[in-house]
Amino acid sequence: MIIEIYFVDKFMYYQIDFIPKKEIFMPFVDLKDLKKRREIIAGAKARIIHMDGMTLSYWNFAEGTKLPEHSHPHEQMTKLIKGRFEMTVDGETKILEDSDIAVIPSNALHSGRAITDCELLDVFSPVREDYK
Amino acid sequence: MIIEIYFVDKFMYYQIDFIPKKEIFMPFVDLKDLKKRREIIAGAKARIIHMDGMTLSYWNFAEGTKLPEHSHPHEQMTKLIKGRFEMTVDGETKILEDSDIAVIPSNALHSGRAITDCELLDVFSPVREDYK
Repeated sequence: MIIEIYFVDKFMYYQIDFIPKKEIFMPFVDLKDLKKRREIIAGAKARIIHMDGMTLSYWNFAEGTKLPEHSHPHEQMTKLIKGRFEMTVDGETKILEDSDIAVIPSNALHSGRAITDCELLDVFSPVREDYK
Repeated sequence: MIIEIYFVDKFMYYQIDFIPKKEIFMPFVDLKDLKKRREIIAGAKARIIHMDGMTLSYWNFAEGTKLPEHSHPHEQMTKLIKGRFEMTVDGETKILEDSDIAVIPSNALHSGRAITDCELLDVFSPVREDYK
């Protein structure tokens, strides 16, 4: 497996697949250790972990931040972790509850709005090469 | 996209890829609506959503339940949602914190133990055909 932890603001990039597994494998990634967070849109910072077949993106949204409508070929699941977030997928809008999983197919249009400061976990498949 | 929501105790199975997308697409899945939960191991119930390239499994573990050591070719990420869970991956053991993401490569041995009642979100890639 390749674990890539990638911080855009410093252009630090660890691609560690060529190092023997026993030396580098970190099964537990503490998000707090990923201090340099990619700010993909103003007001929204992501901490990103790339695996072989999927990319995890842990988001901190500031209150009021809008996620503009967009789409991508990767399918995506989103789980709200903290706060309140309004999401629109394929024309349907919902304020995410703790028990909701948002399921976004390949190329489906989606957007969002942080009603409060909030934290969200996205998982994409396949890997988001555009986040590298 | 195929969304399959699969409840083993009733052998109910919805494979909805052949229905036109506009009629069936449910971008927001409320875990509370998935009342029939597959009990893959005693004391641990899963609610499962299959996408095209990944499978989500939302787990409720009862206090004291052990996840026996096992492995699978699918890579996996695990995020603790509620409670306390001790996880071992490739010989390394950690009580998961809110800020931890467990990253399990293909075929890595892993096991766990619910210290309290807890909830965990697993995402696997590729799809867990063995969960269908």
